[in-house]
Amino acid sequence: MDLKSTIREIQDFPKAGINFKDITTLLKDPLALKATIDAISENLKDKGVEIIAGPESRGFIVGVPVACQVGAGFVPVRKPGKLPAKVERYEYELEYGTDALEIHRDAIKPGQKVAIVDDLLATGGTVLATARLIESLGGIVVSVQFLMELKFLNGRDRLQGYDVQSLITYDE
Amino acid sequence: MDLKSTIREIQDFPKAGINFKDITTLLKDPLALKATIDAISENLKDKGVEIIAGPESRGFIVGVPVACQVGAGFVPVRKPGKLPAKVERYEYELEYGTDALEIHRDAIKPGQKVAIVDDLLATGGTVLATARLIESLGGIVVSVQFLMELKFLNGRDRLQGYDVQSLITYDE
Repeated sequence: MDLKSTIREIQDFPKAGINFKDITTLLKDPLALKATIDAISENLKDKGVEIIAGPESRGFIVGVPVACQVGAGFVPVRKPGKLPAKVERYEYELEYGTDALEIHRDAIKPGQKVAIVDDLLATGGTVLATARLIESLGGIVVSVQFLMELKFLNGRDRLQGYDVQSLITYDE
Repeated sequence: MDLKSTIREIQDFPKAGINFKDITTLLKDPLALKATIDAISENLKDKGVEIIAGPESRGFIVGVPVACQVGAGFVPVRKPGKLPAKVERYEYELEYGTDALEIHRDAIKPGQKVAIVDDLLATGGTVLATARLIESLGGIVVSVQFLMELKFLNGRDRLQGYDVQSLITYDE
């Protein structure tokens, strides 16, 4: 199935110059949604994944159905203040200022095999923060799976050493 | 499976007096996650659901895997400014002030059968707003499914006329 044709591009969202990839047109199409989850699950076959971790909030959309399909649990990685129990926090640099993500301290047991699933690889900052949080709990990041990758932003360079796969790539 | 035992209660989150139901302990348990999605999907059997709609962001967590399992598409209902294409907006009253939700205008076709899926029925305000948005596009809300229901908040009273089901209830 040609998944790329089900994704809508919207110029100048959220700000001028950005060509936003809108996955809502993929999600509302039952066949495209199923093909997406099937393909990512197939990429994870034979990796022994016990936990899928997904960053807020589009990582939830792609990550939870993959967890169900591969028989793993799901761990949300959230913006500060959203998780109710004790957390680990990871702060990272943005173009202007800093951002942070949190994970529950008891979300992952040492030695557990974890795959990160998100909708989009752009600069890679969010996913690198997610990987660091998983590793701070003793988890092993066995794979990083994206629906889409913006190759011109070179996010893959920041994820060297990880097994990174994307279903769809954009060259510009 | 006793799903309730997999949900953690956390006192005084996000503020004093609230006994927060933390579903992250359910989500990280593969068997509990699968049992949850299976049970909601079973409740939707024979209802002809074409679209699952879920409000941001825990509605994404429960709604997308249900959509995959029942062979429906998924439509996110989001806070203002998050959806990139043309939207319908619904404003609703809170205890202090107002809040709003948005849906893409082309998310649902007139006559489509839609089920709303969310993690929690509390006062029912979010789900009522979601139902109104779906109906403003001509969609038919054939079912409303929750993982949990706080019965003492009487949210069900605000959803009269809808088919409402919850997997787990709390009486206090």
